[in-house]
Amino acid sequence: MSKKKVVLVVEYDGSRYKGWQAQKFDVDTVQEKLEFALSKIANHSVGVVCAGRTDSGVHASSQVVHFETHSERPLRAWTLGVNTHLPPDIAVVAANYVSPDFHARFSALTRRYRYVIYQSEFRPAVLAKAVTWTYKHLDENKMREAAKCFVGEHDFSSYRAIGCQANSPIRTVLNFSVEKLGQYIVLDIRANAFLHHMIRNFAGVLMAIGAGEKPVSWAKQVLDARDRTQGGVTAPPHGLYFVDAQYASEFCVPQVPLGPHFLPFRDEAVLDG
Amino acid sequence: MSKKKVVLVVEYDGSRYKGWQAQKFDVDTVQEKLEFALSKIANHSVGVVCAGRTDSGVHASSQVVHFETHSERPLRAWTLGVNTHLPPDIAVVAANYVSPDFHARFSALTRRYRYVIYQSEFRPAVLAKAVTWTYKHLDENKMREAAKCFVGEHDFSSYRAIGCQANSPIRTVLNFSVEKLGQYIVLDIRANAFLHHMIRNFAGVLMAIGAGEKPVSWAKQVLDARDRTQGGVTAPPHGLYFVDAQYASEFCVPQVPLGPHFLPFRDEAVLDG
Repeated sequence: MSKKKVVLVVEYDGSRYKGWQAQKFDVDTVQEKLEFALSKIANHSVGVVCAGRTDSGVHASSQVVHFETHSERPLRAWTLGVNTHLPPDIAVVAANYVSPDFHARFSALTRRYRYVIYQSEFRPAVLAKAVTWTYKHLDENKMREAAKCFVGEHDFSSYRAIGCQANSPIRTVLNFSVEKLGQYIVLDIRANAFLHHMIRNFAGVLMAIGAGEKPVSWAKQVLDARDRTQGGVTAPPHGLYFVDAQYASEFCVPQVPLGPHFLPFRDEAVLDG
Repeated sequence: MSKKKVVLVVEYDGSRYKGWQAQKFDVDTVQEKLEFALSKIANHSVGVVCAGRTDSGVHASSQVVHFETHSERPLRAWTLGVNTHLPPDIAVVAANYVSPDFHARFSALTRRYRYVIYQSEFRPAVLAKAVTWTYKHLDENKMREAAKCFVGEHDFSSYRAIGCQANSPIRTVLNFSVEKLGQYIVLDIRANAFLHHMIRNFAGVLMAIGAGEKPVSWAKQVLDARDRTQGGVTAPPHGLYFVDAQYASEFCVPQVPLGPHFLPFRDEAVLDG
């Protein structure tokens, strides 16, 4: 039987999972739930590869995933069928058959994340685990100005986790926008790839700058130090969303609207920088 | 010691609670969690009264609550202080001292709810328990047209739960708007008071009409029958939010922006009909 490759777009609320990656210990992970559901539909054991592994508590509005199967199924089996075997906080939102040389991780040209900050005197209840709350007033103009230093190819040693296992600390940030939308401030970042905790470390530094605790120049000062101990706090995972991965168009990876979907969609154009 | 009366505005995600009202059985309710947290701060046992009791799975962006205390505390103790004793999915978002003749339930002139429908081929994951999902295409114009019959004073027997304990089935609906915002359809309803399941029964009938399964005239036909068995299905609780209660201005009940906060706030004017 010939194997077929399938690409999926997957949305998940990461708040009750120990991150994307399946682990040896008996803990809930998104990968494990998805592989279980796919295996049910495929009727054989399925392993998946994703575009960008997310940490504990981090969400995705469109994680891109591939897997191989020798089972013949209509596409809706890989969406609606799989969804019936997934918990409510994980859902397949698009699927396509794809050429054998596609790889969700290695074929990805860029990844894109959004970090959603909710600014209010009182903490949110309905979106408690879907945003990062701060009671501090943040000046988004200072944050936007500070973020400019991140764009381009840099050594991001100061913004990677101590335990980050990447071979090189060099990454290329293609866009970094900071937008205020009512009580939300959204960081929107596209890069060829990201280091471990990179965006949450960006967010930690930018929130301190926005609150006036550090000057705008501090973001670049930390960057230039190439030393994690010079950095700021790692911002919480709840506000972070994997929102897109870009591939060569010939792969025909399905496109879905940019998330997270509770953000004001009419402002898509503003954020889609 | 003289007693003081305090009014609170409370936000909650009702998805993991058996509704607002404290029960004899050992189940989690919003009232019980709030009374526990208030008692901690007051240093005596506190009982609360709310503007509108919500069912299991129903949310509130601004439930109005009052209680009495003989403890002298600054207002921030009743907001920030109480929040430290509440679970993440419940938060006090405003507080004020209020005159002794205020009563969260009996002084309320009107109540307002929003019912949020999310329309998409695939179910949502991040907002799984914060919206009511339908894969069907709904025609919001038909729904708006049908909803007109609900405005005014009517016998809503066909739209109350079988077990509803209200003495009279007569209620006055002051506003009923139906707005499409991207993939959301929001029903926004203000009435002097509501019967049990009234809005979810409205939603059930309007969704059938929007999907073209029933004619626009069906909403009025059901209303005129004054018979619950002529009604439609009761729509799920997840999309329902208690968003406001109106009081005489002399009570100085704090006002907060209309929720739920994940809706596009820039369209406030459209919905605030």
